[in-house]
Amino acid sequence: MYQRVSFSNIDLFGDFWEKRQDINREVTIYSIRDRFEDTGRFQAFDMIPPEQGGVKPHIFWDSDIAKWIESVAYIIEKHPDSELESKVESVIDKIEAHQGADGYFNLYFTSVEPMNRFTNRDAHELYCAGHLIEAAIAWAKATGRERFLHLMQKYVDYIEKVFVEEESAAFATPGHEEIELALYKLYQYTGERRYFNLALHFINKRGTVAAENSRYNQSHCPVREQKTAEGHSVRACYLYAAMADLAAESGDAELRSACEQLFDNIYRKRCYITGGVGSSCQGEAFTVDYDLPNAGAYAETCAAIALAFFAGRMQRITPNPAYADIIERVMYNGMLSGVSLNGKEFFYENPLEIIHACRHRNVSVHDAEHYPDARRQEIFGCSCCPPNVTRFISSIADYQYTYDENTVFVHQYMSGVANFDINGAAVKISQKTNYPISGDIDIVAKNMKGKILAVRIPFWSKKYSLYLDGGKSDKEIKDGYIYIAVKNDMMSLTLHLDMKPRVMYSDPRNAADAAKISLCRGPLVYCMEGCDNTYPLRSIRLVLPLEAEEFYNQALDCIQISAKAIVCEPPKGEEELYYSNPTVKAITSEWIPYYAFANREECDMLVWCAYNQ
Amino acid sequence: MYQRVSFSNIDLFGDFWEKRQDINREVTIYSIRDRFEDTGRFQAFDMIPPEQGGVKPHIFWDSDIAKWIESVAYIIEKHPDSELESKVESVIDKIEAHQGADGYFNLYFTSVEPMNRFTNRDAHELYCAGHLIEAAIAWAKATGRERFLHLMQKYVDYIEKVFVEEESAAFATPGHEEIELALYKLYQYTGERRYFNLALHFINKRGTVAAENSRYNQSHCPVREQKTAEGHSVRACYLYAAMADLAAESGDAELRSACEQLFDNIYRKRCYITGGVGSSCQGEAFTVDYDLPNAGAYAETCAAIALAFFAGRMQRITPNPAYADIIERVMYNGMLSGVSLNGKEFFYENPLEIIHACRHRNVSVHDAEHYPDARRQEIFGCSCCPPNVTRFISSIADYQYTYDENTVFVHQYMSGVANFDINGAAVKISQKTNYPISGDIDIVAKNMKGKILAVRIPFWSKKYSLYLDGGKSDKEIKDGYIYIAVKNDMMSLTLHLDMKPRVMYSDPRNAADAAKISLCRGPLVYCMEGCDNTYPLRSIRLVLPLEAEEFYNQALDCIQISAKAIVCEPPKGEEELYYSNPTVKAITSEWIPYYAFANREECDMLVWCAYNQ
Repeated sequence: MYQRVSFSNIDLFGDFWEKRQDINREVTIYSIRDRFEDTGRFQAFDMIPPEQGGVKPHIFWDSDIAKWIESVAYIIEKHPDSELESKVESVIDKIEAHQGADGYFNLYFTSVEPMNRFTNRDAHELYCAGHLIEAAIAWAKATGRERFLHLMQKYVDYIEKVFVEEESAAFATPGHEEIELALYKLYQYTGERRYFNLALHFINKRGTVAAENSRYNQSHCPVREQKTAEGHSVRACYLYAAMADLAAESGDAELRSACEQLFDNIYRKRCYITGGVGSSCQGEAFTVDYDLPNAGAYAETCAAIALAFFAGRMQRITPNPAYADIIERVMYNGMLSGVSLNGKEFFYENPLEIIHACRHRNVSVHDAEHYPDARRQEIFGCSCCPPNVTRFISSIADYQYTYDENTVFVHQYMSGVANFDINGAAVKISQKTNYPISGDIDIVAKNMKGKILAVRIPFWSKKYSLYLDGGKSDKEIKDGYIYIAVKNDMMSLTLHLDMKPRVMYSDPRNAADAAKISLCRGPLVYCMEGCDNTYPLRSIRLVLPLEAEEFYNQALDCIQISAKAIVCEPPKGEEELYYSNPTVKAITSEWIPYYAFANREECDMLVWCAYNQ
Repeated sequence: MYQRVSFSNIDLFGDFWEKRQDINREVTIYSIRDRFEDTGRFQAFDMIPPEQGGVKPHIFWDSDIAKWIESVAYIIEKHPDSELESKVESVIDKIEAHQGADGYFNLYFTSVEPMNRFTNRDAHELYCAGHLIEAAIAWAKATGRERFLHLMQKYVDYIEKVFVEEESAAFATPGHEEIELALYKLYQYTGERRYFNLALHFINKRGTVAAENSRYNQSHCPVREQKTAEGHSVRACYLYAAMADLAAESGDAELRSACEQLFDNIYRKRCYITGGVGSSCQGEAFTVDYDLPNAGAYAETCAAIALAFFAGRMQRITPNPAYADIIERVMYNGMLSGVSLNGKEFFYENPLEIIHACRHRNVSVHDAEHYPDARRQEIFGCSCCPPNVTRFISSIADYQYTYDENTVFVHQYMSGVANFDINGAAVKISQKTNYPISGDIDIVAKNMKGKILAVRIPFWSKKYSLYLDGGKSDKEIKDGYIYIAVKNDMMSLTLHLDMKPRVMYSDPRNAADAAKISLCRGPLVYCMEGCDNTYPLRSIRLVLPLEAEEFYNQALDCIQISAKAIVCEPPKGEEELYYSNPTVKAITSEWIPYYAFANREECDMLVWCAYNQ
């Protein structure tokens, strides 16, 4: 089993991610707080029943605030902020004040339906509990204060009593998974095995209770028999993440095999090129293999994050390069599209195409056809994604390194310094890079003599060059990584990855993308936006071999790509819907990174493009 | 104003349409009767209230039976059939027995909700009345017996009283248009102007009553101000057909202009290449310009037929070749796909693409996404399409010719003989052709000396040759027709149209079809079916210039086309969802006429195809 180098041990600076962490810390965390304040989410912790003038909480409001607290904890670890800190403490005060004597805590089921505690499997109680536990652990780590943690431990005692000892709840397993991975974190933090056992209890019980048989929440069969990703995609990936935690820790071969098959199914058949998953709005769910509609995509921001959780935990089992690949896709595309460049607005769903005309059908009845929002919003009724984005970005360095006593893996390239111990020895790894604008990466490893440094060569970098202590190396890639035996106390390494714009094809069975290509540059998926292009995006056909030029777009702070393309039009003067004598016109198509779309005017957008070779 | 040569004056034989009329007469009309019998639609005419054990009719059952009767009338005109005839007479007996003393007749509102007569605008009473009127006229023409007609005239008297004299109904205009064109037919048959006036009353009233403001049924503004096709597409085209009737008859320039603008909007922006219209299942409706989804198409069979009704009536005003073009598209594609080759099964919706994988999403909740049936059915709950298909096919020769005192237009090519009078002079036009298998057409015109014969050169025939009395003619096309001054009592004409397979492009704004092409041959749109092709249809890219071979497919009785194409696949052994190093493979794609799809195994289908030039 490998360990992850915690983001707590890494300082990021001078790079793509430092900018995003700055916005996250200076804008996003406050903006979410304000919107949660506006909507009564903080006020709900006063637990005044609605009939006495209190706010009526939604069943998942606990989790919204918990994820926000978790993110505050991650932020203040490195950037103390008394305003945020005291806000969190005031929430903890209220939790302490209103927690049941038995340890139970839930906004909705305390203030609205106290008689119905643990009677409705779909009511998110254990899900909320899981997020509160994660927040409490993060808060203890960040502040050293364990008041919140102890409150949540008391709640866990109660949950254990109800679900294991007494089996007195109306259901046996969580309707929305989350608490399983929280319990594993609690085990990691406290070292108390009973938390591990409670997580394992929920995992083992799932899919074995006839009354709870539901593909929607992964209860259609025991988890070890699940081979394809099914149902609600956030629930699914939270479950798989917990399964991976337990498999990594316990060496449970069956659990590991299920995790590997589930990951493989997602990676090879049910995942957007952006790292988005859960292609259907119907049940916010995985559907069938190769069913990845673009304009109608669901691809919830939380689901992409949950997939990164899953992949990150799988990296603790084995350094399959697919895990780092998926994490990279999510980081730079399917998660990052979830937040606007100004840090204030969020997508819940992340379509890979927007056709405005179809969005505005003027049908007078039954207009129930689903298209995702074309604009980000500051808050949603179900606002799970914004606090998930902020906690993910503030802890993103978690995905950079894993290690065991012999080897340190470099999975992701971000400027910064990591300081961590391997069996008591202080290791320091520095990275300097302008990735993903540039593919040049300088790494300095200290105190690793006698160990292996494994650096990832992303699958998309067809050419690369590696220099070790200034000398060119011809070491070969083995399963996605170059393994370097470190011979000195200090080793310097320079890596040049191939950032030339490239096109990606999709499996012919993927109907939405077959006979199309996607333009990418490094880890970034690109897209065309209507405001940059004169012709309807669907009519543009990229010309292969690709003829592309790059330039810096200051407004969006990114590399824009101009690529040669053609369009067919009816002959001038004719306005025929169908015609046989096209005028073929050479044009230049303009592409920006997918994550940057919808930050200007409302317009069409397209990732997968027709082409001519 | 031009007159249409009625199908009554035309015998079709030895051609594509004779075969279809044979199946229609021998199989379809009986099969529909049987299914209507099974489902209680005939029994409902016994008017036994449901609480006394009678069948509870649906509000549109009158129209189902009426259209079936209309088709029986068209069939027995040329092929007497005592079984069908006595069945119809038995229905008329029941109508006579149960018609109100005041003339009212409606299955549902007599036997189920007698107190609610004419209170619900959406309850299809006037729509049913219209179809009964059309049936009664057809029956009178076919049999010379006017009993049914007189019953319906009595009903029309009552309708006039309620809607014009007393204005005592709860609404002013029909919720589902149809009676307007029926009243015009009644005027044509009887010569009584008051029927014309009643039709005009409904037309003029529409869109002027605030309480009836609805885009769904074309009541959003007065009809003369309508410029884009809106709402429920069958209702819309029935309305437009009636408007065209009245405009042709009256010379009303405003009405004519509205009709021309509406037709133009449909033809240039809201019509599938198959002649299908009403692209959305939401409201079975027209949506916005260039919104023509393929897999999610609605394109109801009735809507294509209604569009042909509209275009056919517009031909009486002016011989714009777009009218004949639309009628041809409908005849050979969007209407004909509505019935199986065996004549027994029907499509309500006519998609231009089927992707089976997406149809079988295994989502456990809220699976409301709409995909049309991939198999035809013998009957539907709302079974308007089957009897519409049978009456359309049995009267299809209606679309072949129009004329005035100077000119006879040949709009459609079908083997047969037309005998009709022009100002008392007996004209005879014979056609001999194997169209659309072959593009060779022989026409003989008798007794037209001094007049003009105008023969249509379809827009798709880039080359053609014309022989007059054996000698090659170089007469030029003028607005889609070649105008030939007939110099002898008998003139023979031979036309060779270019039937070479060709590709069609679509307007770049048509997102569903942009950057794709459609393969066509003569008037037939072609499609690929999964059972003929090895690769997923969406992954196939046709190679341009087109390299195609034709052969006769005996099982489907059609010309099949094999066309050179390419597909891209991941390199052998790799199973990557996204990849950068495709293997490009040359393949042969197999195409059959669109109307023939879904007559074998259930499989994928595609009309608009990617391409490489």
